Amino acid sequence: MNVATPAEAGLRRFSLAIDAMGGDHAPESVLDGLVLAAERHPRAQFLLVGDEARLTPLLAARPAAARVCAIRHAPDAIPGDMKPTAALRQGRNSSMRLAIDAVAQGEAAGVVSAGNTGALMALAKIVVKTMPEIGRPALAAIAPSARGDVVMLDLGANVQCDARNLVEFAIMGDAFARAVLGLPGPSIGLMNVGSEELKGDDRVRQAAEVLRAPSTALNFHGFIEGHDIAAGTVDVVVMDGFTGNVALKTGEGALKLMRDMLRQVFTSSIPARMGYLLARPALDRLREWMDPRRYNGAILLGLNGVVVKSHGGTDATGFAHAVDVAMDMVTHGFIQQIRDSLSRLATPGPSVTAPQD
Amino acid sequence: MNVATPAEAGLRRFSLAIDAMGGDHAPESVLDGLVLAAERHPRAQFLLVGDEARLTPLLAARPAAARVCAIRHAPDAIPGDMKPTAALRQGRNSSMRLAIDAVAQGEAAGVVSAGNTGALMALAKIVVKTMPEIGRPALAAIAPSARGDVVMLDLGANVQCDARNLVEFAIMGDAFARAVLGLPGPSIGLMNVGSEELKGDDRVRQAAEVLRAPSTALNFHGFIEGHDIAAGTVDVVVMDGFTGNVALKTGEGALKLMRDMLRQVFTSSIPARMGYLLARPALDRLREWMDPRRYNGAILLGLNGVVVKSHGGTDATGFAHAVDVAMDMVTHGFIQQIRDSLSRLATPGPSVTAPQD
Repeated sequence: MNVATPAEAGLRRFSLAIDAMGGDHAPESVLDGLVLAAERHPRAQFLLVGDEARLTPLLAARPAAARVCAIRHAPDAIPGDMKPTAALRQGRNSSMRLAIDAVAQGEAAGVVSAGNTGALMALAKIVVKTMPEIGRPALAAIAPSARGDVVMLDLGANVQCDARNLVEFAIMGDAFARAVLGLPGPSIGLMNVGSEELKGDDRVRQAAEVLRAPSTALNFHGFIEGHDIAAGTVDVVVMDGFTGNVALKTGEGALKLMRDMLRQVFTSSIPARMGYLLARPALDRLREWMDPRRYNGAILLGLNGVVVKSHGGTDATGFAHAVDVAMDMVTHGFIQQIRDSLSRLATPGPSVTAPQD
Repeated sequence: MNVATPAEAGLRRFSLAIDAMGGDHAPESVLDGLVLAAERHPRAQFLLVGDEARLTPLLAARPAAARVCAIRHAPDAIPGDMKPTAALRQGRNSSMRLAIDAVAQGEAAGVVSAGNTGALMALAKIVVKTMPEIGRPALAAIAPSARGDVVMLDLGANVQCDARNLVEFAIMGDAFARAVLGLPGPSIGLMNVGSEELKGDDRVRQAAEVLRAPSTALNFHGFIEGHDIAAGTVDVVVMDGFTGNVALKTGEGALKLMRDMLRQVFTSSIPARMGYLLARPALDRLREWMDPRRYNGAILLGLNGVVVKSHGGTDATGFAHAVDVAMDMVTHGFIQQIRDSLSRLATPGPSVTAPQD
């Protein structure tokens, strides 16, 4: 099952395939999300994959979504707790699988699902396949910082990485930041322990050497440390998947702790409650700015198609943001951008030899 | 230069040796910190190492500190930007080195310095030496969480770790939490990427197997993820030094971002300013609870003595907290606790063979 380019196949009729049955509140939350997406992307066409009998009346009740959606029947759905291996064997007629198949067959440029993360990653890798130029796909996400949005990757697709993997993550992160954040030359930081006395490891230093070479044409900032994520020192934060997964969740945990403490502060006394009411407009802006729904969407980069995982528990607003991310990648030539960058790496210049693992 | 136990040497006259010349505001901030420490530890005796001519009048002006301090002259001080290798060669008469020497010679049970981190770590490892039972020392710190203070280690002393190192970190973290947080059976979590679909790496799984064995007598919680740090899911968070360094700084960065955003919120309008004034007592308690000075002190665990690094830029309050941590370790038999735990590991039961690196 190879990916045909649209020109070759003449097949591509859909911007995105949507797994209508994935997520805690599917299919309603998915369809409500598509109402919002239809407003923002009026010329898009979505292939809505799921239980036709359930979807038809729901879609009829949402004319704005109906205008941009076509239903494809899928008799099954992959449960949230199914192991990836089981999903591969038993999920052939599932909404997730048929949506992914549509990407592999060139019918759609990408897929969005709020379903089982492990199943989506496994199915996407096997069905859509990794780009021939890329060693390993990476999981990316967008996070807030003091100086605008920041792309973080890898967030756990690769627990062990070598220097070559890190270089590829930088290239994919660069292409992603161009497509989704609209930055012409995003700055790239490579995560390290940084301070002089605590030496970074060899693979990080080796990756930095390659990224510094002018031939890569990347805006490589150099090494960064953990606090640089929230400070917004760079636009793209490159890490191995173990570190990235821990860093993302540690940062989220710290922000949640702070939100919980503030809630306690503002309910601790009558004057504090009044204080909250007075500061409320500004506090609401802060809350909105940090709204996790604005940052919904984990993106599997490096496949022959766009694959976006929406958080399973999100609502229509969150799902629409995940669709936004996928649409930005589709319309801004994300995959071609990666190919161009990788071809520059292949030209004479420093290369990563003897990768370690 | 071996470490004599006090009973053997009959030498130990000091609770702690203090590097009087290390830190941005030394020696004044150090001496002011000792005034506070003298109140909290009235029976302690500190060996104050530094420039005698400068220290004598400063100490005379602080009678509370003078009562618990003896000065030892050191003609040199190690600059903040000196490389560890240079500190080893050229720092033989420095305040830091002579303070560390006092620990190695059994004159003091521990040392506190706000000086050059890399130099302190290198000198301590070489002069005080690693405990024979421990493969590699680890850097630990205390952080706030929703459920009380949490011990994090390793924070960067070991960029690459094998399973055996992680097991030793767990044992050292257990002993540290008992001594400094006063917990009788601290729960230990091993950092992983956690979710089913994203498999953790082998060394983490191998370490977990050992830690689960009843013979270790540890309260091992199992795997945790990044968000568990701030949630306070466990009392001790065990990680390799690369991950730990990034996690610590990422969490600090997220909290700093939130503090900066709140400052903006409360200065954004007249009503917001008034709201701040009304909620101020509760906000001040929150600020106090998160005060970085309360968490000052990075501790190098696994040496034949207590070695605490105070933040270079801290004030008297912060330095006194670092002294508190060192005093807790000295008075609660921290090093004996590690020895006892390690001896249990050596008894029949699962062991870590073929460590990977």
